[in-house]
Amino acid sequence: MFEDKNQGRTPISQLGEFGLIDHLTKHIEIKHTSTIHGIGDDAAVIAPEEGMQQVVTTDMLVEGVHFDLGYMPLKHLGYKAVMVNLSDVYAMNATAKQITVSMAVSNRFPVEALEELYNGIQTAARLYNVDIIGGDTTSSTSGLVISITALGEVGKDEVTYRSGAQENDLLVVTGDLGAAYLGLQVLEREKQVFQANPNAQPELDNYTYLVERQLKPEARKDIPKLLKELEVVPTAMIDISDGLSSEVIHICKNSKVGCNLYEDKIPLDPQVISTCEEFELDSTTIALSGGEDYELLFTVKMEDFPKIKANPNLTVIGHITNEKEGMHLVTRANTKIPLVARGWNALTEEDS
Amino acid sequence: MFEDKNQGRTPISQLGEFGLIDHLTKHIEIKHTSTIHGIGDDAAVIAPEEGMQQVVTTDMLVEGVHFDLGYMPLKHLGYKAVMVNLSDVYAMNATAKQITVSMAVSNRFPVEALEELYNGIQTAARLYNVDIIGGDTTSSTSGLVISITALGEVGKDEVTYRSGAQENDLLVVTGDLGAAYLGLQVLEREKQVFQANPNAQPELDNYTYLVERQLKPEARKDIPKLLKELEVVPTAMIDISDGLSSEVIHICKNSKVGCNLYEDKIPLDPQVISTCEEFELDSTTIALSGGEDYELLFTVKMEDFPKIKANPNLTVIGHITNEKEGMHLVTRANTKIPLVARGWNALTEEDS
Repeated sequence: MFEDKNQGRTPISQLGEFGLIDHLTKHIEIKHTSTIHGIGDDAAVIAPEEGMQQVVTTDMLVEGVHFDLGYMPLKHLGYKAVMVNLSDVYAMNATAKQITVSMAVSNRFPVEALEELYNGIQTAARLYNVDIIGGDTTSSTSGLVISITALGEVGKDEVTYRSGAQENDLLVVTGDLGAAYLGLQVLEREKQVFQANPNAQPELDNYTYLVERQLKPEARKDIPKLLKELEVVPTAMIDISDGLSSEVIHICKNSKVGCNLYEDKIPLDPQVISTCEEFELDSTTIALSGGEDYELLFTVKMEDFPKIKANPNLTVIGHITNEKEGMHLVTRANTKIPLVARGWNALTEEDS
Repeated sequence: MFEDKNQGRTPISQLGEFGLIDHLTKHIEIKHTSTIHGIGDDAAVIAPEEGMQQVVTTDMLVEGVHFDLGYMPLKHLGYKAVMVNLSDVYAMNATAKQITVSMAVSNRFPVEALEELYNGIQTAARLYNVDIIGGDTTSSTSGLVISITALGEVGKDEVTYRSGAQENDLLVVTGDLGAAYLGLQVLEREKQVFQANPNAQPELDNYTYLVERQLKPEARKDIPKLLKELEVVPTAMIDISDGLSSEVIHICKNSKVGCNLYEDKIPLDPQVISTCEEFELDSTTIALSGGEDYELLFTVKMEDFPKIKANPNLTVIGHITNEKEGMHLVTRANTKIPLVARGWNALTEEDS
């Protein structure tokens, strides 16, 4: 499982830079009418629908920092690199339309490996209905770096910032939390077992959901659509990439409000609960600080509660308070403890 | 000259990822009315002017591949990283409006070094009137990687692709060619002198134009504006990043035409001519294959010749022929030799 079984070993130099880009992008099709011109010129050209605003976001993934090719298959990596960006588009309540993809790759990767990576990117683009409109492929002196920029469209009355939450709004989260982080712990453990004994078979049967959430996260494309159907415009929204507490704090600080977040309301998958027990970890801590779930956190006016309450995708986990009251977690024992951001942080982790 | 004289050595970890981004971006101002929201949310929001098309381009610069910090000051690097992208926007006959900036940086850089880099990026943004609307700053396990995406606007009747050149069109180039490549040769030579004797002073007085073209290239922001004033819409356009011959071939192949390019018409700066003599290089070869000039190459209808002929920024260097006639350089001796692309190519160069 942890080994690259690629048979083909065509060196990148055999194609050259232009040849490689042509080779990787030749099957790319344009689907949106708003994409006037994709790959193949100095720039792509798009014609946004009149009256719509455009959202633009960019995220970079670096080998050894954001991913470990020891257990992250290249196809999954490509898929995830797209998800990370689309998640930011959906967090603006927008529809994702286009992406550009830049990669720096070292010569240690054969062309076949980059095909796998691009395959994951194209699969994500197809499933999420976004056009790949441009990019850059260059060499790297060491690791692999992927930088994606995503573009989306949103009506100007629907665009949702982090800053619009108001007192008494409800705090809502999609899906469940903590699984992606636990998936990483499981993979790290199996990697160590494998390194100690290369004949060992990974034992992942009890962790399928966790591992999938880590290796193949899905951005919540359905949520902006669902909110439109429910006729709800959130007052604030953010995606959960760094852990729930960090994102709640972002919304509160940007909106100049406080909040009460209820421990017993935080949605957890049964596999998260059982694996936390096995690993002797506190499941609330994992949900608050785990990160990489790519769920959405948003606030809605109290009056919108009837519209969302029956939806299994949405869980009300707290409410917004006055700024002076601060940001708190209300525990199962009904004590209030201040929320702290202990999100996954690529730059400080290096020194920890 | 070749040493980093930075006094400050604040480690990145002292600020953390969020702190670093805040620190670097706190002075960024938004100038365009079309930029609704810049840095600080999941995505930036822009509202393109109605009826205008948007162009999107992205370019990645990798340490050890595209730049050598041994002679490239970080401020210049930041400036150049913006230019490389804006040049692609102008090559679509568009006005640049916004950029996003992503960087992967290793811990060996102190915060002060990144301030220098960002200073160059902000200087470029200010001078070229583009808003910095987003980005990502992350750690790297080794070198420095900068990925910039640029956005621009263009009227749908003015957007200029590589593919519109037609038989009998004139082939026009802006500025002069070959200087940036020679600047690199001069800097490489001085670096070797410096490495052999760290007390040696670099001798750059005779090469000021060349070195400046390499270290601080300027994208041709003035050209789309000039063309509009002259009421000329080019039939095809491309920016010269890989050398003139490579770009001429791109236009011809995309437009399915041939061309005759006249050696004696290629614009060269006197410093290029004298330095080519000193280095025993053929100046035509340097202009054809040197790259990194970031001038624009375009084609116009013959009837537009009177509008452009008096302009000192523009030089007619050839004309478009039927595809069957092929792509040729007509030498000073009036012989026709086939054009070949020997542009600067990051991926194949590694193996050469």
